[in-house]
Amino acid sequence: MNFNLKKSIEILERTPSVLETLLGGLSPEWTTQNEGENTWSPYDVIGHLIHGENTDWIPRTKIILEQGEDMAFVPYDRFAQFENSKGKSLQQLLSEFKKLRGFNIKALKKMNIRDEELELTGIHPEFREVTLGQLLSAWVVHDLGHIVQVSRVMAKLYKEESGPWVKYLKVLH
Amino acid sequence: MNFNLKKSIEILERTPSVLETLLGGLSPEWTTQNEGENTWSPYDVIGHLIHGENTDWIPRTKIILEQGEDMAFVPYDRFAQFENSKGKSLQQLLSEFKKLRGFNIKALKKMNIRDEELELTGIHPEFREVTLGQLLSAWVVHDLGHIVQVSRVMAKLYKEESGPWVKYLKVLH
Repeated sequence: MNFNLKKSIEILERTPSVLETLLGGLSPEWTTQNEGENTWSPYDVIGHLIHGENTDWIPRTKIILEQGEDMAFVPYDRFAQFENSKGKSLQQLLSEFKKLRGFNIKALKKMNIRDEELELTGIHPEFREVTLGQLLSAWVVHDLGHIVQVSRVMAKLYKEESGPWVKYLKVLH
Repeated sequence: MNFNLKKSIEILERTPSVLETLLGGLSPEWTTQNEGENTWSPYDVIGHLIHGENTDWIPRTKIILEQGEDMAFVPYDRFAQFENSKGKSLQQLLSEFKKLRGFNIKALKKMNIRDEELELTGIHPEFREVTLGQLLSAWVVHDLGHIVQVSRVMAKLYKEESGPWVKYLKVLH
């Protein structure tokens, strides 16, 4: 599938509602457990998504579109949520993510990105030159990947309980 | 996490809304592609879930609870959706799934299953003796596994488009 801005926004703008429907009001036993050391719970993931709204996707889009003197992206802190989420409930995080994503989708639409601008580049701290199209594609995949992750983390909590069915429940492998 | 009926219902009763929020109104390009030969598109998955509502989870629960002479489950047809979904739109399938799941959750609640009944058994065509607790756990994992699947299938459509980010987008591996 070729990158298409309109179709990308279809996914990006529904992610907060998907996560709220998937996680809102669940017993904490579902949302606070992870897959073991150095892995994230659904609660951690929402904090991570919030950090991305504040520091990653739209700020980097702006750097590329402006084509200024310094097109280097600020490195992304993959652990910021452990500090930033402190004291907040999952419901607060879900609402915060929804609000921020709403602002960012509005900003993205206002940019009226033209097809030829998708080839403009910025400088990623590790990958070096990346295009705007790649950045926006990665944003969509990143959203879907975290929906995969939170669903998988919760599924694994019933691995033992499912007995022999584990064989056909690939998400548990 | 130990099996808990109330907490299981928290997941089971939200699955139709999660899938509707995730898939409803998306461009068909997102929902009709699969991961290659013998794999399923999001559209196929919803048809599969509908078949499960009609023939698998609640019918098998009833067989176990009744403890009649024949406790053998009817084998599950994992390909029924290719016939049954014909001519139906994704939106029709999502609505049908929501309606059936609603009936089945109502039926499940009405059964007032007691903790000791979770140890009752039925006969699975392949696994032989399985408990009601294992069946209901597998139902929850099955739901979450298919949310994982449809999200992963859609994410992979932007694999090429994401360029170097593929390295950190584990859902694409």
